[in-house]
Amino acid sequence: MSMMVIMHEAATDEQVAHVCARVEEIGAGAHLSAGGRVKVIGVIGDREAITQLPLEAMPGVDRVVAILRPYKLVSREFQQRDTVIDVRGARIGGGHFALIAGPCSIETPEQVLAAAKAVKAAGGHMMRGGAFKPRTSPYAFQGLGEDGLAMMAAAGAETGLPIVTEVVDPRDLDVVCRYADVLQVGARNTQNFLLLAELGKAGKPVLLKRGPATTIEELLMAAEYIVKEGNRDVILCERGIRTFETATRNTLDVSAVPVIKIASHLPVVVDPSHSAGRLDLVLPLSLAGVAAGADGVLVETHPNPEHALCDGPQSLPTAVFGEYAERVLDLARWTGKTV
Amino acid sequence: MSMMVIMHEAATDEQVAHVCARVEEIGAGAHLSAGGRVKVIGVIGDREAITQLPLEAMPGVDRVVAILRPYKLVSREFQQRDTVIDVRGARIGGGHFALIAGPCSIETPEQVLAAAKAVKAAGGHMMRGGAFKPRTSPYAFQGLGEDGLAMMAAAGAETGLPIVTEVVDPRDLDVVCRYADVLQVGARNTQNFLLLAELGKAGKPVLLKRGPATTIEELLMAAEYIVKEGNRDVILCERGIRTFETATRNTLDVSAVPVIKIASHLPVVVDPSHSAGRLDLVLPLSLAGVAAGADGVLVETHPNPEHALCDGPQSLPTAVFGEYAERVLDLARWTGKTV
Amino acid sequence: MSMMVIMHEAATDEQVAHVCARVEEIGAGAHLSAGGRVKVIGVIGDREAITQLPLEAMPGVDRVVAILRPYKLVSREFQQRDTVIDVRGARIGGGHFALIAGPCSIETPEQVLAAAKAVKAAGGHMMRGGAFKPRTSPYAFQGLGEDGLAMMAAAGAETGLPIVTEVVDPRDLDVVCRYADVLQVGARNTQNFLLLAELGKAGKPVLLKRGPATTIEELLMAAEYIVKEGNRDVILCERGIRTFETATRNTLDVSAVPVIKIASHLPVVVDPSHSAGRLDLVLPLSLAGVAAGADGVLVETHPNPEHALCDGPQSLPTAVFGEYAERVLDLARWTGKTV
Amino acid sequence: MSMMVIMHEAATDEQVAHVCARVEEIGAGAHLSAGGRVKVIGVIGDREAITQLPLEAMPGVDRVVAILRPYKLVSREFQQRDTVIDVRGARIGGGHFALIAGPCSIETPEQVLAAAKAVKAAGGHMMRGGAFKPRTSPYAFQGLGEDGLAMMAAAGAETGLPIVTEVVDPRDLDVVCRYADVLQVGARNTQNFLLLAELGKAGKPVLLKRGPATTIEELLMAAEYIVKEGNRDVILCERGIRTFETATRNTLDVSAVPVIKIASHLPVVVDPSHSAGRLDLVLPLSLAGVAAGADGVLVETHPNPEHALCDGPQSLPTAVFGEYAERVLDLARWTGKTV
Repeated sequence: MSMMVIMHEAATDEQVAHVCARVEEIGAGAHLSAGGRVKVIGVIGDREAITQLPLEAMPGVDRVVAILRPYKLVSREFQQRDTVIDVRGARIGGGHFALIAGPCSIETPEQVLAAAKAVKAAGGHMMRGGAFKPRTSPYAFQGLGEDGLAMMAAAGAETGLPIVTEVVDPRDLDVVCRYADVLQVGARNTQNFLLLAELGKAGKPVLLKRGPATTIEELLMAAEYIVKEGNRDVILCERGIRTFETATRNTLDVSAVPVIKIASHLPVVVDPSHSAGRLDLVLPLSLAGVAAGADGVLVETHPNPEHALCDGPQSLPTAVFGEYAERVLDLARWTGKTV
Repeated sequence: MSMMVIMHEAATDEQVAHVCARVEEIGAGAHLSAGGRVKVIGVIGDREAITQLPLEAMPGVDRVVAILRPYKLVSREFQQRDTVIDVRGARIGGGHFALIAGPCSIETPEQVLAAAKAVKAAGGHMMRGGAFKPRTSPYAFQGLGEDGLAMMAAAGAETGLPIVTEVVDPRDLDVVCRYADVLQVGARNTQNFLLLAELGKAGKPVLLKRGPATTIEELLMAAEYIVKEGNRDVILCERGIRTFETATRNTLDVSAVPVIKIASHLPVVVDPSHSAGRLDLVLPLSLAGVAAGADGVLVETHPNPEHALCDGPQSLPTAVFGEYAERVLDLARWTGKTV
Repeated sequence: MSMMVIMHEAATDEQVAHVCARVEEIGAGAHLSAGGRVKVIGVIGDREAITQLPLEAMPGVDRVVAILRPYKLVSREFQQRDTVIDVRGARIGGGHFALIAGPCSIETPEQVLAAAKAVKAAGGHMMRGGAFKPRTSPYAFQGLGEDGLAMMAAAGAETGLPIVTEVVDPRDLDVVCRYADVLQVGARNTQNFLLLAELGKAGKPVLLKRGPATTIEELLMAAEYIVKEGNRDVILCERGIRTFETATRNTLDVSAVPVIKIASHLPVVVDPSHSAGRLDLVLPLSLAGVAAGADGVLVETHPNPEHALCDGPQSLPTAVFGEYAERVLDLARWTGKTV
Repeated sequence: MSMMVIMHEAATDEQVAHVCARVEEIGAGAHLSAGGRVKVIGVIGDREAITQLPLEAMPGVDRVVAILRPYKLVSREFQQRDTVIDVRGARIGGGHFALIAGPCSIETPEQVLAAAKAVKAAGGHMMRGGAFKPRTSPYAFQGLGEDGLAMMAAAGAETGLPIVTEVVDPRDLDVVCRYADVLQVGARNTQNFLLLAELGKAGKPVLLKRGPATTIEELLMAAEYIVKEGNRDVILCERGIRTFETATRNTLDVSAVPVIKIASHLPVVVDPSHSAGRLDLVLPLSLAGVAAGADGVLVETHPNPEHALCDGPQSLPTAVFGEYAERVLDLARWTGKTV
């Protein structure tokens, strides 16, 4: 059964018959359950076809309850075992843990190399950094573009760390693919469906961030857009949702980690830096995410946060990154992960 | 004064001096106020330069409070009088009210023409309709593309109604501009900054929807991206925000209408269809928006909602559109608007 | 049908049989619908008995969907016609509109009388004022208690206005009842169920505010607590919910007005003062509420807001109350209400 | 400095002088900073007196920014070292961890004893259980009252576990105090200030739950109500906040744990049962809370959740409680706590 159509108490027999007829018209089955004062019509058949029917617009219909989840390829029902993604030797998912770290934005070759070395030395698995930066203000630093990518690639080559970086414009996809190992979708593009569809054909793993007002179900639907085009290597990222609380920039929805692990076979990471927007919360939130079962952490580190062009206030100084990483990796081991 | 830096109670004199020095380094002024246990540093100077300084990352800093609004060109301070936008004779803003209506998605020439005629007959000012549809599910109808635009343009030509339609991909901008009079930015693209920047150069008015988790300040910043590129014709649209309430699809933030009118000179419309997702709320929410001071309403109407490929449940049947429009336009007149 | 139990795809026949057996054990009926991969069990019978069953805790159960609304006495299904409440001649509901105004807190006999006279002169129907104030800070003014009630009663007697005032402690109920005509439940007590139950026996109309995180369904359940004890005179009040938006203190959920009018026969008022927390939004939000179908407005007015002990920033000065009331009452007439 | 008053750009010198005069009238100091286009007035002096001034209602004032936190006694500034609470030998706070577990509601002597024994055997430190139950529906089970308390006390005596139970009505305080060791304030009473004030005089430790729409600052203000009356033994409890996400009943705001630990000296526990409302999330959310630094966990366990009268779906069966406790206590040790 795909859906249940709950009729109003006052719905007439004609209205019930009309809904059933419309359902059967598209080749699906309608199964009427009547009991007490309320009639319910179960709809059986191809979910995609049924979704097209505007059942709620039909006279006498009170509401429609989806029985099946609206996503398919990313679900545990479709694939029981965990997806394991191998990024040039760094593995994530299925018991493999990845610590992904680096500066918010790439600024200079020295800065990115210093960060990469600190990440490598601390046992990190991949490096992150932004060359194309979507910024709330048109007056803020917008990133170095391809120059930044080249700096990051050089640092990646020197340290052996795979590179995670954001794509914001489908027209940049080719150039980003020349340098990056993992293509990141930022929180403002979680539902930029045309970008997702192109990433589905890009042939590189994708790290898909949850938007601040995206439900977990919508995040899984967004991942479905990518997987549907043939790219099964999608890492999901919880980075905080918008709530009424103002003590933190966003509210890390740590429950999303186990909820996603139960519903889907894809790996999940947490981003404590953007969630909190406060340096003093980065370690506790990282540990919370790992304890809840995350397959990795995506975190900002910078050799000199006080001179960072972006997100300085929440970036770990590279000088303390080793200590940070030790706690995070030790807890990942405690949860049974291979680090 | 652009910002105030509030120091921790325990901040040392050295830390205070360091913050002041960093501020002065970029050519801004630092003004220390000490009183009671807390020291506060007022920062005076060019806001954009100051924004680049990661003040919160400096030792001893508790928090930073912005004094000036982060937007400029869209603010009432910058331009006192209301912006009036003229779309092929239909005016909106500065006391002019516009009723903009049409189907969620363009399906057939007959459907769009029937809708356009109903809108025109009821006294509507522009028609809306989607040819490129961003959909939560990859399995849902994605729109007719250029064919849809052509159908809409034909209906617009026949009825004399200007056309409002969404652009989702910057690569489609040229083709959409060939047919459309107003370029709509959907709620999932409110912070797609590269799209906004290109719309700033497109030479057509833009209708910018607020995202479900976008604050009013962020919406105004998004509009600033467009205006900064030279396009001053931006209509803002409140279409509901995400909250805990589930009786409605989104919560129409009707307060946004007067808040924006106070803060900005740009016209504001409400979209009652997407806010509520329920047909029985479309009229009351339209009236609420108009009473709160909206310069227009953007609403869905369809000749046959029960067969709509998109948003059927919340579309007004064209058969009742005349009655609906009469109430809305009458109330707009009551508020003193020219309709 | 009261509920539908949706089983996991992998649920065994034994698990299905066990759920059915448990349902039948309490005298309810279980009706199995199987179709496609999912089994659904419809539960038919006494809703209150069924609610006690922890169906979601039973093995094999995925989720439980309530079909019937959880409230009864306050629903439109239970009573089709609007409830009209008569408060010493002032009527509200069923087409009767009431403007209820006064200061946040009662401070002096002069202050409350000045406010009452302004309300009366402007055509207001009842006066409001607080004698027992629940305040977020233990250091804020907590109200005058019975002295305040006496001042308000004197002003009510002089102007002929019925009195609306808050009860915060069930132990104060007797004393408040000696002075008040309508007993208000504040937004922090919406789900103070023992207070609600006592108000159900108090023999006076109740004005029940929605809490900032209370859903509309929960508000109706809270009203059910009162009505269930025999008190059918309940006025519901929308006063803003908590969301991520910070431009307003709360977000006036104007959709709640029509949603409640559809679901329930009880009158609904809006409180624009607490929603916005800003004086410049009080008129537009009042008009929005009235246009959406509210049966009244509850608003703060004070002879000298700048010296108010509570909520000064959002209180209308009595000097402008006449103008304000004229617009509100005129719009109420436009909507077809008797004022 | 307690507050900063930011004036409108267009504020006149008279308006500025008026604000300063009003501030000085109450014995506080006003310190004007002018720079660029904006004037800011720093207010120095007794915070409680200043809070009474309706500064935002004064002409020319744009907004008021609080510099000092509005709470005092519960702050780290007031008391640097962690508060340690000793409940008949069970300690919490300052490095001591407490696992508090038991059924949602007390049903029978057998049920509560079975739960208590399971908690004790697993190394738990206190038992919880409800005798007075605030329920959303007036038709739901409302608790056994004093009979339930007596059953719980008997089980506590037999196992040696201190008892945590909720008070909902100040009139029940005496009877609850006769049986309970820790008085719980439920999430619907977080801002029931009169109840808080009475608990401040009750002479027993209080476990104060955060309401679903209470900010962290408001929670600390609520605790201040209790501490101000002389009761310094307050345990704070994060139990999930209301957000747009529907996959969980509430969203566990795990960030609240470190935020509170930084701002206050009071111990903090997490309640994973009410946050999630789902059994399969209880362990991961418990671990997340502990990893983030919580001083304890408050969790529901029941010998037979499928027959529970309340919260069955989220209660751990006592049969698996041992395993659960082992993981939680082991992680608490990993964080450096004494268990």
